[in-house]
Amino acid sequence: MVMSISDVEVFPVEVLEARAQINRQLDIYTRFDSQTLSGGQCPKRLQEAIRHSLLSDGKRLRPLLVMAATHVCGGDMGKALGAACAVEMIHTYSLIHDDLPAMDDDDLRRGKPTCHVRFDEATAILAGDALLANAFEIMARDTPQGVAAECCRMLATAAGPSHLVGGQVDDLACQFGASDLETLQSIHDRKTGALLSVSLQLGGLIAGGSPKMLSGLHEYGKNVGLAFQIIDDLLDLRGEVNQIGKRTGKDSEHGKLTYPSVIGVEASEQLAREKVASAISALQIFGSNGAPLVLFANFVVDRTR
Amino acid sequence: MVMSISDVEVFPVEVLEARAQINRQLDIYTRFDSQTLSGGQCPKRLQEAIRHSLLSDGKRLRPLLVMAATHVCGGDMGKALGAACAVEMIHTYSLIHDDLPAMDDDDLRRGKPTCHVRFDEATAILAGDALLANAFEIMARDTPQGVAAECCRMLATAAGPSHLVGGQVDDLACQFGASDLETLQSIHDRKTGALLSVSLQLGGLIAGGSPKMLSGLHEYGKNVGLAFQIIDDLLDLRGEVNQIGKRTGKDSEHGKLTYPSVIGVEASEQLAREKVASAISALQIFGSNGAPLVLFANFVVDRTR
Repeated sequence: MVMSISDVEVFPVEVLEARAQINRQLDIYTRFDSQTLSGGQCPKRLQEAIRHSLLSDGKRLRPLLVMAATHVCGGDMGKALGAACAVEMIHTYSLIHDDLPAMDDDDLRRGKPTCHVRFDEATAILAGDALLANAFEIMARDTPQGVAAECCRMLATAAGPSHLVGGQVDDLACQFGASDLETLQSIHDRKTGALLSVSLQLGGLIAGGSPKMLSGLHEYGKNVGLAFQIIDDLLDLRGEVNQIGKRTGKDSEHGKLTYPSVIGVEASEQLAREKVASAISALQIFGSNGAPLVLFANFVVDRTR
Repeated sequence: MVMSISDVEVFPVEVLEARAQINRQLDIYTRFDSQTLSGGQCPKRLQEAIRHSLLSDGKRLRPLLVMAATHVCGGDMGKALGAACAVEMIHTYSLIHDDLPAMDDDDLRRGKPTCHVRFDEATAILAGDALLANAFEIMARDTPQGVAAECCRMLATAAGPSHLVGGQVDDLACQFGASDLETLQSIHDRKTGALLSVSLQLGGLIAGGSPKMLSGLHEYGKNVGLAFQIIDDLLDLRGEVNQIGKRTGKDSEHGKLTYPSVIGVEASEQLAREKVASAISALQIFGSNGAPLVLFANFVVDRTR
């Protein structure tokens, strides 16, 4: 278990309670005891692999963003719980597949052996596939029915060939050739930004937020997403493995393009701070309701893992 | 290109036209030129890998079943085209991943090199992932909005841990130990039956079919699905590689459980015929409208690839 004492200092009790609620719900969803067509059955080993990766000590940033966006738009956070869990499943699937030997070849994730190390490659590929499909079952079933189809569409677009998957393809391609800031930005937008951004839009949509609110969330998400990725790059460069929960220094070992490698450490830190400031100013429309997302933005730059 | 003259003999022009329509629509969908969030872009290599596997000479049985089910329930087949393509994408994703070295390790599929042979493992894994996600974008967006969420839910359940993925996990596990007819049946129900069955249910739902119609489609699907798998096993045992479009004899080489290996060739042929007869008698509720599905059932036992 990775230390999370810093979270307690950063987040108020409401956010910690929302995270506990998300964790409980992810546990319930992955029992797979009430969600099947006739004759369905999830093999025990597959279930273990899914739960190994999903129920680990993740930060749950994306599902918390879904619920926070519902809250700041004046909606009921409980109605966003299914969507929040669906987003976390998509995120976890992408981590499992990215860690595979054919891709980033990582053996440590969230402080535990990666899925293919703890189980085997076939099981890891299939555990990722299962999470990807299951996310849409949950989104379609447990999201308010008036917006469920639109939520499925948005999540699928963010997870699809032009965003999450496309970003990973180009990220892998860039291990074998130098590139520029524009390429780096495009990869981050798709690989990290799209899912963060859609988390906020899903929360806003479930709350019935106005177009102005959704536009504020979009602007916020774009800036926070970029800050998040820059800090990730910096943490990878400087982090301690026991604090960050995955191998560090791998990006530079692999010659991967990162913000510090392209524009330097200081300029990266400066850019992250600027993006967080822009994110916070996009929250003006929400007045004092926007507080949880302000906290979030600050957490992104202050985090140590 | 694999010969398909036998299809021309078996199917009337309406079915061939529906297949051509499906193929045209799959081509349009995988141009990825109008389906993105801002900043989205599908890398060229990923797109090529997706199209290599998806636009090959598949039989399109599942999408044809979607459209046929819509037709027999008195609905407009055009409204089922998105759902039909979504199902074919799920089927193709599962083929790409099943063919991977970590799984069935196949190098030939639909008469062409498998995706990881033609491209590489990472690209094949990601092409499968992209098809899985994209299927839900299409289903959520291009299915009549009153039933889109329910269609997403049904497809996700059939593709998820308790069905398609779970069946593949247990199928892999059975390569390393003998088993019995009950296990074999359970694997087939999940790995093949669930997606065939859900294809029919989707078509019925899109047509606004009555509970009795949906129940007839369910009974038909259960029986046709089993017959389909038995014939697949028999074709693998006896087939010629240039006719069937993938390596044959692999099941027995790998010591995999199949119908002929458990109950013998003759009993397998007899069982397939019985199941097709049961399937056809489940179509009585549709009267003469049921003709396309009768043709289908007969095609399943008569097919040579």
